[in-house]
Amino acid sequence: MAVVPLLSDEELSETARAVFDDIRRVRGTDFVNNFWRALANDPPLLQATWERLKVVMAPGALDPLTKEMIYVAVSAANGCEYCCHSHSASARSKGMTADMHGELLAVIGMAMQTNGIVNALQVPVDEAFKA
Amino acid sequence: MAVVPLLSDEELSETARAVFDDIRRVRGTDFVNNFWRALANDPPLLQATWERLKVVMAPGALDPLTKEMIYVAVSAANGCEYCCHSHSASARSKGMTADMHGELLAVIGMAMQTNGIVNALQVPVDEAFKA
Amino acid sequence: MAVVPLLSDEELSETARAVFDDIRRVRGTDFVNNFWRALANDPPLLQATWERLKVVMAPGALDPLTKEMIYVAVSAANGCEYCCHSHSASARSKGMTADMHGELLAVIGMAMQTNGIVNALQVPVDEAFKA
Amino acid sequence: MAVVPLLSDEELSETARAVFDDIRRVRGTDFVNNFWRALANDPPLLQATWERLKVVMAPGALDPLTKEMIYVAVSAANGCEYCCHSHSASARSKGMTADMHGELLAVIGMAMQTNGIVNALQVPVDEAFKA
Amino acid sequence: MAVVPLLSDEELSETARAVFDDIRRVRGTDFVNNFWRALANDPPLLQATWERLKVVMAPGALDPLTKEMIYVAVSAANGCEYCCHSHSASARSKGMTADMHGELLAVIGMAMQTNGIVNALQVPVDEAFKA
Amino acid sequence: MAVVPLLSDEELSETARAVFDDIRRVRGTDFVNNFWRALANDPPLLQATWERLKVVMAPGALDPLTKEMIYVAVSAANGCEYCCHSHSASARSKGMTADMHGELLAVIGMAMQTNGIVNALQVPVDEAFKA
Repeated sequence: MAVVPLLSDEELSETARAVFDDIRRVRGTDFVNNFWRALANDPPLLQATWERLKVVMAPGALDPLTKEMIYVAVSAANGCEYCCHSHSASARSKGMTADMHGELLAVIGMAMQTNGIVNALQVPVDEAFKA
Repeated sequence: MAVVPLLSDEELSETARAVFDDIRRVRGTDFVNNFWRALANDPPLLQATWERLKVVMAPGALDPLTKEMIYVAVSAANGCEYCCHSHSASARSKGMTADMHGELLAVIGMAMQTNGIVNALQVPVDEAFKA
Repeated sequence: MAVVPLLSDEELSETARAVFDDIRRVRGTDFVNNFWRALANDPPLLQATWERLKVVMAPGALDPLTKEMIYVAVSAANGCEYCCHSHSASARSKGMTADMHGELLAVIGMAMQTNGIVNALQVPVDEAFKA
Repeated sequence: MAVVPLLSDEELSETARAVFDDIRRVRGTDFVNNFWRALANDPPLLQATWERLKVVMAPGALDPLTKEMIYVAVSAANGCEYCCHSHSASARSKGMTADMHGELLAVIGMAMQTNGIVNALQVPVDEAFKA
Repeated sequence: MAVVPLLSDEELSETARAVFDDIRRVRGTDFVNNFWRALANDPPLLQATWERLKVVMAPGALDPLTKEMIYVAVSAANGCEYCCHSHSASARSKGMTADMHGELLAVIGMAMQTNGIVNALQVPVDEAFKA
Repeated sequence: MAVVPLLSDEELSETARAVFDDIRRVRGTDFVNNFWRALANDPPLLQATWERLKVVMAPGALDPLTKEMIYVAVSAANGCEYCCHSHSASARSKGMTADMHGELLAVIGMAMQTNGIVNALQVPVDEAFKA
C-alpha cells in the first residue's frame, strides 16, 4: 500500500482529471498506472511531473527506447522498486528484446561494480577527462 | 589523492603489465587512466575487471555509445565523481553530441526526481507491470 | 518478513522490556511498531537507538514536524520503504497536511533531480559557497 | 573541473541569457552560480530546471528555509558535494542558525542510521502505517 | 514478482543448466535461489556472475563469513531487499551469531550516520589519510 | 573546504575540548582529524557521536579490523569520500594488508554489481531466506 491513497477516476479533482485525460490520449490506452493515481493527491505536482515527462521522454537526439533504458539504470542504482518495474515494462513495450535487456543488466552491474571500487579507492580524476 | 598509490608503468607486476598492454592494444592509445593504475595494486582484481569490462562494453544488442550513457546514468545516481568524468569523456569520444548529452541529463534528472517521489510515496507496483 | 524475528512483548529481555515501557510512556500509546520489535533482538542496540532518537527528535531549534519531514526526505533518497511509511505516518500525526506533503514531495523530487544532474556534470563548488 | 564548460555571460545563447536575467532579478544579486553555468550548455534544460525550481522553492505550505533544509537532507543522502555546499549556503542566507544546522545534521545522521539498520533487517511495514 | 520470469529447471538453456549443476555441486544442496533463476534468462550473464562470485567469495586473505558481512553492509547501504535477505541468511549459515549480527547492524548504522553527516558537511580529507 | 569551519584547538568550547581530550587519550595520539573539528561546531552532536563510536567500534563479537572494513564497505556504497579515506587508513593501521584490501574491494564490487542487477530485476525473496 502506498503512503497516500491511490485515487480512482471518480476521486479526481478537475486538474487531475485533465491530466489523466491527456495521459490516456498521449499513450493511446485507458490504463493509468498507480504513480499517477498517487500523485493525483497533489494536482499541481501531478501536472508538473506529467508535463515535464512528456518533454523529456519524447523522441529527440536520443530515441525513446534508449531513454527508457537509461531510466531503468538510474532506478536500479537508486533501488526504486516501482520505477524498475514500470520502466522495464515500458522499455519492453518500446522494443527492448531479451538480449538488449541482458546487456542493459550487464552494463548496470559493471557500472555499479566499478562505482563501488572507485569510491572505495577515491581514484583522482585524470586531467585528460576534464572539460 | 587515492586511497592506494597509482602505479606507474615501472611499478607494475608482470600480470598488471600484461593487462596494461592489452588495454593499450584494444584502445589504440598509450594512455592508461588512473582507475587501472589504482587497480594495479591488486593484479587479479585488475585482470578480472578488465576482462569483464571488455565483454560488457563490446558492441552487441546495444551499441557502445548507448552503453556508455547507461554507465554515466548509474554513476550519476551513485554520485561517483571519477566514473561520471571518465564515462562522459568516453561517451563523447564515441559520438555523444551536446544535444544527446543534454537529453541524457534530462532523463537522469527525471528518473532521479520520480525515484525520489515514488520512494517517498511507496507506490505499489501495478499488476500490469509484472512479468 | 524480516531478516530477524519480530519479538512479541512476551519474548523481550529485561532491558528490551524497559525500553518498550519507555517508548509507550513517551508516545502515550500501547502500540510499539515493528522497528523496535526487530531491534529487540539486540537489547543494547535497541536501547542506544531509542535513547538517541528521543534526543534528536525532541523539540529544539527545529520543531518536531520539520524534523520528521527531513527524516522522510533522507529515507526517500535512500529508498528505505519502512522508513518512508513510518516517518510519513509520524509527520501526519504531528500536523503535516496534504498541502505540506505535496510540497515535501516536490522538494524531494527537485533535490533528487538536481543531485543527479550535478553529479553527472560534476559541477565544481563556487568559492562563494565555501565556509 | 566540470564535465562540460561553465559558460561565462559572454558565451550564453539568447534563451540562456534570458534565464540568467531572471535568476538575477528573482535573487536580487548579480552572482550566478556554477550550476546554472553548467546547465547553460543546454538552454531548454536550463530553462525547465529554473522555472520548476522557482515554483518548488517558493513560499507555500512550507516556508523556504524548511525547504532548503529538506534539500540539504536529500543531497547529503545522495552524496552530492555541490548540492550540500550550495543549499547549506542558501539555508544560512535564509536564516539557518548554527543550532538549527546542528539539529539538521543530527536528524540526517539519525535517519541515515536507521535507514541502514532497517534495510539490513528488512523490517516489514506495520499495518498501522499504511494509508 | 520479478521483472523477468524465474526459470524452473525445465526451462533452462544448456549453458544455464551447466551453471545450475555447478551451483548445486559447489554448495552441496539442490536448492537454487531466485537470483540465479532470474539471471538464467541471460545465460552468459548468469555464467559470468557465478564464475566471478565463486572466486570473490572463496576463502582467501579474508574468511568467507567476513566477506558475507561486508556483502550485507553494501546491500544495506544500497537498500537491496533481496541481497539483505540472501546474504544475511548466508552469513548465518557460515556462523554469524546473534551477537555478531547485532554488532554488524551497529557498525552499518554508525557508518550510515557519519556518512550522512560528513556528506552534509563536506569535510575535507586530512593529509594524514592520503596514500 | 567544509560547509562549516574546522575548529582549531583554540576555538573549542569546554564540552568540545573534553571530547578532544578523550579522543587523544583513547587513540594515544595528539592528532585529531577533520571530522571531529567539523562536528566541534555543535558540541552535543560531537559528544554523542564520539561516545557512540567508542562503543560501536570497540572489540566485541567482531574484531575492530572487521568493523573497519564493514565501515569502508558502507562508505563506498554511499560514495562518502572522507569516510573511504579515513576508514581505509584506520583499517590499515589495524592490520589490513594489501591482499585483504584487494579482497575487500572485490567483495564491495561484487555486492554493488549484484545489488544493481537484483534491483533492476526486482527478484522476489526466496521463502528459505526469511526468518
